[in-house]
Amino acid sequence: MLIALLPGDGIGPEVIAEAVRVLGKVVGDKLNYETAAVGGAAYKSVGHPLPPETLDIAKRSKAILFGAVGDPDCDRLERHLRPEQAILGLRKALNLFANLRPATLFKELADASALRPEVAQAIDMVIVRELNGDVYFGEKGMRKTASGRREGYDIMSYDEDEVARIARIGFETARARRGKLCSVDKANVLETSQLWRDVMIEISTEFTDIELSHMYVDNAAMQLVRNPGQFDVIVTGNLFGDILSDQASMCAGSIGMLPSASLDSNQKGLYEPIHGSAPDIAGQGKANPLATILSAAMMLRYSLGMGAEADRIEAAVAKALESGARTSDLGGKLTTAQMGDAVLAAI
Amino acid sequence: MLIALLPGDGIGPEVIAEAVRVLGKVVGDKLNYETAAVGGAAYKSVGHPLPPETLDIAKRSKAILFGAVGDPDCDRLERHLRPEQAILGLRKALNLFANLRPATLFKELADASALRPEVAQAIDMVIVRELNGDVYFGEKGMRKTASGRREGYDIMSYDEDEVARIARIGFETARARRGKLCSVDKANVLETSQLWRDVMIEISTEFTDIELSHMYVDNAAMQLVRNPGQFDVIVTGNLFGDILSDQASMCAGSIGMLPSASLDSNQKGLYEPIHGSAPDIAGQGKANPLATILSAAMMLRYSLGMGAEADRIEAAVAKALESGARTSDLGGKLTTAQMGDAVLAAI
Ligand SMILES: CC(C)[C@H](C(=O)O)[C@@H](O)C(=O)O
Ligand SMILES: CC(C)[C@H](C(=O)O)[C@@H](O)C(=O)O
Repeated sequence: MLIALLPGDGIGPEVIAEAVRVLGKVVGDKLNYETAAVGGAAYKSVGHPLPPETLDIAKRSKAILFGAVGDPDCDRLERHLRPEQAILGLRKALNLFANLRPATLFKELADASALRPEVAQAIDMVIVRELNGDVYFGEKGMRKTASGRREGYDIMSYDEDEVARIARIGFETARARRGKLCSVDKANVLETSQLWRDVMIEISTEFTDIELSHMYVDNAAMQLVRNPGQFDVIVTGNLFGDILSDQASMCAGSIGMLPSASLDSNQKGLYEPIHGSAPDIAGQGKANPLATILSAAMMLRYSLGMGAEADRIEAAVAKALESGARTSDLGGKLTTAQMGDAVLAAI
Repeated sequence: MLIALLPGDGIGPEVIAEAVRVLGKVVGDKLNYETAAVGGAAYKSVGHPLPPETLDIAKRSKAILFGAVGDPDCDRLERHLRPEQAILGLRKALNLFANLRPATLFKELADASALRPEVAQAIDMVIVRELNGDVYFGEKGMRKTASGRREGYDIMSYDEDEVARIARIGFETARARRGKLCSVDKANVLETSQLWRDVMIEISTEFTDIELSHMYVDNAAMQLVRNPGQFDVIVTGNLFGDILSDQASMCAGSIGMLPSASLDSNQKGLYEPIHGSAPDIAGQGKANPLATILSAAMMLRYSLGMGAEADRIEAAVAKALESGARTSDLGGKLTTAQMGDAVLAAI
């Protein structure tokens, strides 16, 4: 089975290397890899953040293991040449519309959260973020106002089909968990959100066993601090999901711990840690590889039908943490490779 | 000096009543009040959330003390008749473009935050939120896609003048504090944010004594949990400001504690607690009036030139908390009026 490896920028290559070692131990040679350049690294070598060869490998593969993109050297490039366009382009080109971001606190890491331990320990949620629409992909640009002033604009929108398909993923995710779905929007101000809310209510008739609630995004940002344990599954749009999922992951401790899956409607997926490329610590062996290792486990479960192997990786990560293995973001001294060793030893 | 009192919905009337008692004790009869209906209450009595008489009183007054709007009975009304349109309408009609939301933890309330005490106690920031533009006020509506599906849309935009005037408020606010301004945007995805960032950098040449930094909104939502003490002044757009300021206030403890000012360019302002109408506890004497009392203090300082009187109110609130006065949101037993009494006694 072909897996596309897209390490990308900054700490991406370091954390991908550890995930591949762990996959090797758990699934042996059942997987073939093709590695391709993406992000700032691809721009620097071939002049585009998402070169056609890379997109081609991604299309041919069963799943994509992605490191991170983002490179301060590229900040002043035209938008379509910036590293971020690679991940946005992949999500769109491959119809990866459903982003699943679990947030749970490994009990060994209760001290890593800025929240009080009793608040943090109750966190056990999945954020389902729509990934192909919203203000991310609408028409956008710079124009002049009637009085000749510069104006930037971006069109936010969702149509009912886009909302319905992510709604169903949200309801199904809740059904496989505790049966509670909270839809987050800003329907008191945005028409896009009003349509979102209307369609959520319509689709809920297909899932009468699931308890659907609605929350405004400003309140959700408060509730994620006040009492994150109240959430089971949150479903929300691309922009609010970007903000809330990062916030939730920080509530659950280090951002270095949390994986994500971005799925199309046929089990194909892109798997990436939710952290960024962290250029400040790149190449120093300081990065925490666990989020990427856990992303690889999600890949086995969702795209390759290897749930048992995914369980083994997740158990090994927990065991490594139990044994005291910590990179510096968790207050420890291990290097990236040593953390990889600790997980390998625990398998 | 004429003050417009707009109590609004839910707990609005209860908390406004306490603020007026406190103002009476501190500034005596220097202020005249006219009370007017707004929000769901106004819709129910005269059929519109912002009746012309109310807008007229607001226009004639030197400052507006506002309770809260929001009423679940009105959720299914057409958008232009919903309670929220009253506050959005006032902000726009009176050119109240600069929303100042201080977030600080009263040291007596370190236990009220979900954050660890050492993280929470470091919070001392002001969020400066733009209030007249962004996706709040662009063209919006429902339409049909080419394939006949329902679509909701909202246009997000900022022009350079709108960004420049709020930038200057941000820089000036930072100058009166610790000299650090963090501008929050999503320039890696949004053209509106790119213009925002460009103009922030341009205006920074007028304020070379201030340290300007930039942060993406997803990262800001994380940093507000991880280490909120790093922020002095945050300046951001209407939508991101809505989310981040509520999040920051929850980091600083109860949402029942925090005031806000919405200013035009001539010291006229609308002052309101950042909490909502809390219909679930309305009329029961459970609401915490301190956010509204502190909003009244901001009103004295920013719109009425009575800084010393504002200081007296703020000191009295601190003293009441020191003496152990707590409403139920803070884990205590006092009613709304008893909390008002405690502040009055401390003046
Ligand atoms: C890099 C950026 C474009 C991206 C996003 O905003 O979606 C990132 O923040 C994420 O959440 O994956
Ligand atoms: C009531 C609502 C329209 C309003 C907003 O979104 O601005 C509120 O959340 C606020 O922050 O004052």
